[in-house]
Parts: sequence; structure tokens; C-alpha cells
Amino acid sequence: MRVPLIEKPVVGSVTTTVGEYLVSQLEAVGVRHVFGVPGDYVLDLMDIMVESSMQLVGTCNELNAGYAADAYARLNGVGALCVTYGVGGLSVVNALAGAYAEEVPVIVISGAPRTSAKGKHLLMHHTTGDYNLQLSILEKVTIAAVTLTNAEQAPAQIDRTIAACLRYKRPVYIEIPVDMVAQPCVTPLSFERPNPLVSDVQALNEAINEAVEWLENSEHPVILAGVELHRYGIQKKLHQLVETTGYPIASTLLGKSSISELHPQFIGNYAGALSRDYVRNRVESADCILCLGAIMSDMNLGGYTAKLKESQLINANSEKVKIKHHYYYPIDLGDFIDGLIAKLSRKSYDSLDIQPASQLLSKSFQVQPEHKITNARFYERMNHFVGDNSTVIAETGDAIIATIDLLIHADTRFIGQAFYMSIGYTLPACLGAALARPQNRVILFIGDGSFQMTCQELSTMIRLGLNPIIFLINNDGYTIERMIHDGSYNDIQPWKYHQLPQVFGESINCEVRTEGELEDALKKASDHRDRLCFIEVHLDRFDCCQTLARLTQAVRRN
Amino acid sequence: MRVPLIEKPVVGSVTTTVGEYLVSQLEAVGVRHVFGVPGDYVLDLMDIMVESSMQLVGTCNELNAGYAADAYARLNGVGALCVTYGVGGLSVVNALAGAYAEEVPVIVISGAPRTSAKGKHLLMHHTTGDYNLQLSILEKVTIAAVTLTNAEQAPAQIDRTIAACLRYKRPVYIEIPVDMVAQPCVTPLSFERPNPLVSDVQALNEAINEAVEWLENSEHPVILAGVELHRYGIQKKLHQLVETTGYPIASTLLGKSSISELHPQFIGNYAGALSRDYVRNRVESADCILCLGAIMSDMNLGGYTAKLKESQLINANSEKVKIKHHYYYPIDLGDFIDGLIAKLSRKSYDSLDIQPASQLLSKSFQVQPEHKITNARFYERMNHFVGDNSTVIAETGDAIIATIDLLIHADTRFIGQAFYMSIGYTLPACLGAALARPQNRVILFIGDGSFQMTCQELSTMIRLGLNPIIFLINNDGYTIERMIHDGSYNDIQPWKYHQLPQVFGESINCEVRTEGELEDALKKASDHRDRLCFIEVHLDRFDCCQTLARLTQAVRRN
Repeated sequence: MRVPLIEKPVVGSVTTTVGEYLVSQLEAVGVRHVFGVPGDYVLDLMDIMVESSMQLVGTCNELNAGYAADAYARLNGVGALCVTYGVGGLSVVNALAGAYAEEVPVIVISGAPRTSAKGKHLLMHHTTGDYNLQLSILEKVTIAAVTLTNAEQAPAQIDRTIAACLRYKRPVYIEIPVDMVAQPCVTPLSFERPNPLVSDVQALNEAINEAVEWLENSEHPVILAGVELHRYGIQKKLHQLVETTGYPIASTLLGKSSISELHPQFIGNYAGALSRDYVRNRVESADCILCLGAIMSDMNLGGYTAKLKESQLINANSEKVKIKHHYYYPIDLGDFIDGLIAKLSRKSYDSLDIQPASQLLSKSFQVQPEHKITNARFYERMNHFVGDNSTVIAETGDAIIATIDLLIHADTRFIGQAFYMSIGYTLPACLGAALARPQNRVILFIGDGSFQMTCQELSTMIRLGLNPIIFLINNDGYTIERMIHDGSYNDIQPWKYHQLPQVFGESINCEVRTEGELEDALKKASDHRDRLCFIEVHLDRFDCCQTLARLTQAVRRN
Repeated sequence: MRVPLIEKPVVGSVTTTVGEYLVSQLEAVGVRHVFGVPGDYVLDLMDIMVESSMQLVGTCNELNAGYAADAYARLNGVGALCVTYGVGGLSVVNALAGAYAEEVPVIVISGAPRTSAKGKHLLMHHTTGDYNLQLSILEKVTIAAVTLTNAEQAPAQIDRTIAACLRYKRPVYIEIPVDMVAQPCVTPLSFERPNPLVSDVQALNEAINEAVEWLENSEHPVILAGVELHRYGIQKKLHQLVETTGYPIASTLLGKSSISELHPQFIGNYAGALSRDYVRNRVESADCILCLGAIMSDMNLGGYTAKLKESQLINANSEKVKIKHHYYYPIDLGDFIDGLIAKLSRKSYDSLDIQPASQLLSKSFQVQPEHKITNARFYERMNHFVGDNSTVIAETGDAIIATIDLLIHADTRFIGQAFYMSIGYTLPACLGAALARPQNRVILFIGDGSFQMTCQELSTMIRLGLNPIIFLINNDGYTIERMIHDGSYNDIQPWKYHQLPQVFGESINCEVRTEGELEDALKKASDHRDRLCFIEVHLDRFDCCQTLARLTQAVRRN
């Protein structure tokens, strides 16, 4: 059980400035890169960032900075972006809504006109004349939001806002008028980590006992892993629970990679009708499903084709445990898992009907060099290509669905925006992920329609010398939309995608139409670990992954 | 004097659907193109648009759709965009804030999850689970906002919302849940144009009399034209006022092109310290400045270097007239100008000290083919290149300042976001402008930093076979920011810009470093009126227009 930290004000004796205080606290909580775009209301603050231990990463536009910071936060535990007022802050709303939905801790910092502009009713550039506008909008997509207007109060306001981000795993917003940056304030002594949720001991014990009794008496239990295992950094507890109990484990899309998918008890990703038949049946026929930290959203559950009855479910998340139809609250997810580990016994492997997902790798891939590459064969090949120490990112659309059965190895992380599903997210996410975990090579799967949304961020990755492998799946338009509901609006301009990176700088660029060409491209990518590799894969217009058709039918009904 | 239309409900006898009603009213108010990006919550509505007389123009992303619709509205009198929920609607906030600030009538339509999703507390894709989120955000950057949840009320709600857009020249928002599109409702009979502002007759007469007396007794009056002359479509009244009185006329940046800049009484654009010395002195030394429809924002007035004393000013805008320190309200701007035309006498040209701006064209441009092109020489050349029947667009940054003295001919319109100043705006604006006024060739001046923000929209212009001439001014980074406050954050990746269009499709592409190469490029552009011409002009890093340095000093002080 965690002990709450004593809450005390941060006070220092030496004097610093509000700008330096803010930058210092970002460093203290582990922000090593800040994404952003300069603008005159934020340049003084950016000067302090440039002088700090952090790297200020300029992106081509602000929405892309938001997406990059989001992916960075997913891997690093916290991320940050810094923009100017109005044109900057109002351009990141969609990125923040996605981070809010998927519980991603992003700190948004925006410059603002000097505090005196408001009193004088001046119509300053980048404003509409309403100096509360940006705060009033961003507070709707953040868990805490503040404008710093008083240097004496600023340190406590900064600390509380950052603490809310870490505590609730949601975006927060800090607005700093340009004349506040150099105002003197106290020096931070250290950053006080926020109090975690404190479980109610009696509720916790009762929940654990009820869950243990049910699980011990069940014959076919299964664990279903959700995204909060990533967010709260408790993947190791999950691993220990799996090892302790012997239970099979499946994962939601958002929870993917919370355990190595080569683990002998890992049976696959569960997303209703999108899952392989065995995975779907094994999960849905379980007599007890221990669901840990999942967001029960439509796509994350296969477009509401999931059939999980409450009478089968122990549903634990970061705040509470729900067993069948009753709740225990407040209960910390980590405490609950610890309790289960302590009390559950191991079931026999044979009785549990476990078909490890790793069986998917048992058949080797035989290249047919002259054959035109297909969607199915491409992802089959990928399952043998993606290995350890990578970060796999799959774009909303066919890619995220096709990667359901792409096995994620130990020390590899998977990112897909499986709930909010903003297309274009993953290209800037690739930038953020590469900087957050430089030891892991990023492998991105993205469709052509999505790519057109945010394509310029390729430039920033090339500029920084990052080395992702980007598979541009060119199927000539919005294929997922075509499957749901076709019309002329799903057509897009056919670009010569593989020629784009050379407009931006140096990279390895390939165009793939056959299995043989794919092999050549993969070899090039493996041989050039020092730079960005861009591989355009041509697929037929309607050659989507097998499960997409089923999903789109499901969406159509909602 | 306008007579108010009688307000009566729109009722029809035949039955249609809510979706068809909405599309029909967009057509009725003159929307011929709708910009947008498809998504499953809006496809049913898009199907109706595809079948209508309007063209649905797919853009590469939603922010760009917002910018395109804004420019379209500036030229067409009204514009529209159509996006899906969340990922779409929350991506256009910045574009709407710009439209709100600069009084641009844009109708924003968003699909939404079916109304039943809300009651069931479902976590649908593209939402955060809060089904009021988008409305609650977009109502802050629009003048009217509605979610259609009742088919019986929908027709009146649609009419009132569109009417508010036309009446107040500001964006409005209409949210249509996917299950509402096919709901039956009454057929529209016609669109009732909104009541204009009705002037208070006595206030109007008193204001006119006071203004006329002052102006008749003044020795050096000047007219200063603002953006509302464009928005309310009363450029002809301005022209008549100028002809009647013989007064010199200057324009604010936003008001630019409200009169032909070759008119013998047009003296130039006034923006404080950014203006030519003669223009600045002539305006600031006037004994009465008749300011018509101007937004008194910082950049529009040269970074608050403008010296306009209230004791010199008659400041009339769309709602009221302020003379010195007192107001008359409500007064319609058109009514006020009509009153002045009727009562003012003509002053003698000689007594007014008028140096026509057209004198700038008196010196012919002598090409020095081997000379490296400079900023000053480039825009000097442009003054002889830009002629009749064009639409000139200047991006925020050096370009908009450099075009202050670029003379706009009759039947040519100028667009620059001189108040809100969102960089990246103009490339998608180029798309919107080309479709709004196909008879006018668009000429765009855009810097490299801005271009990187929204570059993909080149693709859409090429796809539609549009023929703008795009001057990409490559000065290697955020030059305007460098002038204000330099730092490493002002560096950007150097692209091979002129190679980008060929990634997207067919166009004419040139790279210019000397005056001779510029002539070749201009000839190519003139010879190929049927396609997009992309001309990359290389300038030195700090080679900005002469007035920028003065502006940036002014900004630095604010």
C-alpha cells in the first residue's frame, strides 16, 4: 500500500524567475524534449528552454507538436509542448482531446500577450480581443488549466498543475503572459510528486477477497490487459500476476504491448469480431474475465462487437473495481493487482486452454519474389521482421486493425490511437516516440490518406537525424471509409509518396510492388540503421486486412 | 435607408429531410463549394452534398479546410466547411478564431454520433465521451452554434444560424448527429435573408450632420478604408464617396483593395511606421480622418506605431459611429456613407495635397539579368507584374508587409490575415480564393516557414486543375521572428521547395536566384494560364523588406 506524501508548499530561499521556475519543474518531472513552434509571445520562454538541459524540438506546425508530445508522453511518462498564443494554442485542441480521451499526460505551455493588454482592451495579433478565450477552450480538454498572472502565486500554480497531469494522466494547460517570464519568484527546492490515489483499505481487501474467491473457483479465467497498465507504469505487476496465476492473457488494442506477446500465456489481442476466432471465443467464453485498466470504447472493443457480459467481468481501473454489478471505490489499480498476486494460486496450464499467439510465428515466411505484394502477405512478413527493441506505431484505419496480430516482442512498445482515432496522428507520433526512446527503432505503418494530413513532419525527423522505418501503405484513398460507406469524397490525389522525403533532406526511399522488392527494401532498412527509411508499399484499392470488412459492418450499425 | 424584412417562419408543404434541408439552404445563400474531410459521422450528409449543385472539395486536413473556407467567404460573401466529429471539428478551432477576429462569415458543419450514444454513455471513437464538448468549444469562436436534435425544430434552427452568419459576418456552427440526416422535415420555401442592422434615424441624421460640418470645415481631410467595406459589400459606396468629395483615400492592411489603388486619389496603405513617409504624414497630419469600417488592431495599424488621435477621428463601423469621444448607435455603415455622399461637397484637388500611389509605377523596371534578386527588387518587379483580374494573397510575415506598396488594380482583390496573423493560412486560402473567383488568377506570396505549416494543400489545387501563381519566398527560416527576437528555434529544415509540386502532380515549377531567372519564371507563368505555377525565390536570410525592421521594433515594445 502506498503512503501518501505529505503535502507541503514548495519554498526556496534564492530568487529565480517564473520562466526559469517553469522550465526547471519540467526538467524535474522528466521532460527532456519539448515540442513546439515559435511565436513572439513565447520567445522569451523559449530562450530559457534553449539554455536548459531540455531540447526544444521545432515542428512544422502546432497540431503536429501536439501529436508528437502525446506519443512522447506515452513512452516517457510525461510530455510537453510549447506554443504561442491563439494561432498556436488553438491549433492543438484536437491533439489534446485525443490525449484526454486516452489518458495521456501532456503539459501544454502557451505564451500570451502581456497582462496589460487585457486591461487596455487592445486588439493584439493572434487574439480575437478576448484574452480569456484560449484558457476557456483549453480547460475543456485538460484536467487542470491556469494563467500565471501573479509571480508570487506562480510557483504553487505551476506545481499543482504539473502534479495534476502526473496524477490523473491527462493533459494540463499553463498560460504564461510574456511579461511574466522574467518576474522574480522563489527557487524550487524539488518537485513534490503528487499524492497517488489512496485505496480505501477495507474496500480494497473486500474487493481482493471477492475477486480471489471467484477466480479460484473459475475454470476458464482470462486476463484482459488495458491501457492503464502502460499509463501507471505497472506492466511488471501484470507480468508477475500472469506468472503467478498461469492464466491466459489477452490485450485490448490500447493495452497492446503491456506484456511481451511472445509470452507462452499470451493468446492475442481481443477486439470483438476483429480478433482471431480462437481469441474471441476464449475470452468471451471465460467464466471470469479479469479486465485490468481498460477503456471500454467502441473501437478498442472492435466496434462494439465485443461480447463481454458484466456477469463475467471483474473490471478494475485506475480508480475503482467493478465486480459484476457492484463497485469498490477508491481503489488503486496497482494495489488491487498486488493483492491478487499475494493471494491467487497457480492454475494448471493444461486445464486453461492456452494457444499461445506466438504460434503465429511457427510457419516461416517463404518469399515469392515475383508475386505482387498483398495486404495479408505484407503483415505476415512484418510479423517476422518486427523484433526486439522497437517501437511499433499503427495509424488509424486499416493499419491499426492489421497489426492486431502483429506480435510485439519484449522491450518493444506499441502505439495506436485506438479510442480517439484521429487520422494523421502517427506521423508526428513517430517523431515523439523516436525521441522518447532513442534506443528503440520506430516502425510506423500508415495509410496514404492519413499521411497527407501531417506529412510535413517527415522533415523534422530527417532534420534531427532520426531513424524510423516508415511503411506508407498506398491503397489510393480512404480505404477504411470506402469499406464503411463509399463516395467520391474518399478519393484523394495520388502522390508520388516515396519522392517526398528527398524534398526534405537525406533518407533511404523505396517503392515496393512485389514481395521481392519488399525484401530488398527491408534489407536496405536493416543496413541503414542510422537514417530514416521510407518504404512506399502499393496495395490494391480494396485490398484491406481481412478483419476490416467485419469491423466496418459493425461501425455501420452504430 | 434599408427597410427591415418582415421576420416570418419558413414553412413548406412538401416533406424533405434535415440533411437535404441544410444543403438546400447552403445553396440558397450562395455556397457553391464546401471544403472538408470525410469521416463516418458525416458521410450521409456528404452524400447529399455530392448530389447537390455544390462541389464538395476534399482538403488534405481539416485546418486547411477551415482556412480555404475563410478565404472563399472573404470573396464570395459566405463560405462553408464540413467535417466529422471531434478529430474534424476540434481541428478547425484556430481557423475559426481567425475568421471570428476578422469578421469572416463561415458556416461550419460537423457530423456527430447518433443522438442515442449520449444517453447510453457510450465511449464512441472521435469523442472523449463528452457529447457536448465540441459544441461547448466551437460556440466560443462562433456567433451562433446549434446541435440539431429535433427534426421539427431543425429547419428554423438552421435558418436562424445561417442568418446570424450573414448578419454578423462571423462564423457559425451547426452540428448534425448522423441519425438526424434522414429525419423528415418541412421543405424550405426560400431563404429569408436576415434583417440588417436598422439605423436609428435621428442618431444617423445627427451623426451625418456633425460629420459633414466637420469635414466641410476641414482643410486636409483624408478617408481611411477598413475591412468592413469588403465584408458588407459596400465598396461601390466608398468609390462614390471618394469621387463625390475629391478627398484622398488611404487603406488599412485589412481594407486593402476596397478601391482600385490606381485611383488618382488613392495615396497608399496606412499602417503607422510601416507606411511610406508621405502616406504616414498625410494621414497623421489630417485635420479630420474619416475612418470607415476598420478593425483597430495592432498589426493592421503597424504594430501600434499608428498615431491616430481621437480628436482627429470620425470612426464609423458596421454598428456605430464615433466622432471624437462620443458614439452614435445603432448606425449602419452603408447608411452613414450614403448620408455623406448626399451632403458633402467636392473639395479642390490642389488644396488636398494628394500624391497618388500610382506614381510608384511611373518608373519602369529595368531588369539586370545577372544580378542576384533581392527582396526590394522582387517586390518592385511585382508591382509591374500584378495587374487586373487577379486575387493577391500575402502571407503573414515579411510578405504581407512587403505588399503594402504593391498596387492592387481594379477588379483585383487582396487577402491578408492582417489582424489574427496565423502563419500557414494563405496556402489553403489560395485554394478557397481560386474557387470563389475562378475568373481571377490567384497570386500568392508566402515565406518558407509559413509554407511548411500547410504545404499539402498544394496537392488539392493541382488535383482540381487550379492555376494560381505561388511565389515561395525562401529566406531560410522564420525571418520575421529573427527580426523580433532571434534564436535557434527560428531555424527550419531547408526543403527543396520547387521539387514539392511534382510529388503531388502536374505543375510548372521554377527556381529563381537572379533577376533574369525571375523574368523567365514570370514568362512561363504567363504562358501557362491553365495550371499551377510554383516559383521558389531565393533571398538572403536577413533580406527582408525595408519596413519589417521598423515593425519588429514596434512589436518588441508591446
